[in-house]
Amino acid sequence: MTKTLVMVRHGQSEWNLANKFTGWVDVDLSEKGQEEAIEAGKKIKEAGIVFDHAHTSILKRAIKTCNYVLEYSEQLFVPVEKSWRLNERHYGALQGLNKAETAEKYGDEQVHIWRRSYDTLPPTLSEEEQEKQLNMRQFKNLPKDVIPIAENLKVTLERALPYFFDHIAPQLLKDETILVAAHGNSLRALAKHIEGISDEDIMDLEIPTGQPLVYELDDDLKMIKKYYL
Amino acid sequence: MTKTLVMVRHGQSEWNLANKFTGWVDVDLSEKGQEEAIEAGKKIKEAGIVFDHAHTSILKRAIKTCNYVLEYSEQLFVPVEKSWRLNERHYGALQGLNKAETAEKYGDEQVHIWRRSYDTLPPTLSEEEQEKQLNMRQFKNLPKDVIPIAENLKVTLERALPYFFDHIAPQLLKDETILVAAHGNSLRALAKHIEGISDEDIMDLEIPTGQPLVYELDDDLKMIKKYYL
Repeated sequence: MTKTLVMVRHGQSEWNLANKFTGWVDVDLSEKGQEEAIEAGKKIKEAGIVFDHAHTSILKRAIKTCNYVLEYSEQLFVPVEKSWRLNERHYGALQGLNKAETAEKYGDEQVHIWRRSYDTLPPTLSEEEQEKQLNMRQFKNLPKDVIPIAENLKVTLERALPYFFDHIAPQLLKDETILVAAHGNSLRALAKHIEGISDEDIMDLEIPTGQPLVYELDDDLKMIKKYYL
Repeated sequence: MTKTLVMVRHGQSEWNLANKFTGWVDVDLSEKGQEEAIEAGKKIKEAGIVFDHAHTSILKRAIKTCNYVLEYSEQLFVPVEKSWRLNERHYGALQGLNKAETAEKYGDEQVHIWRRSYDTLPPTLSEEEQEKQLNMRQFKNLPKDVIPIAENLKVTLERALPYFFDHIAPQLLKDETILVAAHGNSLRALAKHIEGISDEDIMDLEIPTGQPLVYELDDDLKMIKKYYL
């Protein structure tokens, strides 16, 4: 039987608007981002998709997207699980910096590599920022050395996939229909696995914001087909 | 060590406004109800209360209250569990009826008994309504005979307490701070147990809407003190 996985990438955040590197900084959706999530929910309702479980990150822009999607597809009662493993890629010391200013400072090419290379790490958080991050309540039950201080897509994938295998896959294998509301890079990590995309090609995959991406999967959870609503 | 349980009763719904019996009908918060939930979140933030886990029903007016409380107390990342066991008391065949019209039809005294007696059942759902209820997606994993067709407070308590014992109590016993966002009667059921209120007195306990009620509990999860924020 076909298994259905629907991904929704959160819409515009306040820092997209401000053209800043965001990563794990917990910024809110903008007004437009909120509308995108509501629109996604309405499309899912129109398509008649009913979820058994939903998964999201511990960042509010994804959680709110998840909640709006469930509310506007009239299934707010669906159980939601939140995990740091679905968080956006951690952007290290670049977090909070303006993208244009960073390009001026480090050069376009360097910034391009940080943004587009599969396995080059951006500069890590300063020690002060690391300390601050460790003291955040949302990480109090995580061993220190698990919490990233900078990630490339490769590392993002390595920490996102265990969540897919342990939490999402067992539900899909019971023929459940699953929602994942998350981020550009954590969704890319899942898509890379499901579609079998190479390290070279994965950075070219752009999942548009707020557009529900439906995957139909076979019994090995590999893609049969995908389409946007 | 003291354990902290915070209850928030959802605010005004669209059917409170219309003066209808609601029960398990999944009506939305009114504008005012939404504001009440936001206010509750802000008070919790001011009080510096940080939650480890949150629990709510599968009815959207409680779920949205839960989400607003977490959002406005800046802890949307807190795990939320939703259960039908925290639903409002099921009002049987009275659901959807106007309260004034029902009083005209059955007499004030009868309606008073249905509303205020601890163990008198209201008329049960019609067979047609029962069938409709059974086909609702949110109940598809529940055995038919578990789904109520009319409840008094006694029955509400009997189905809510197992959730308290199995899901909330173990967290409190680990000294966690817990949020329960739910309904007048499911919260009354928990309060009856925690405070040790008699069958006779429980109907006099009115938990106001949107006002966070903080319980400090001892190692047996009995009340040490309670106060509203």
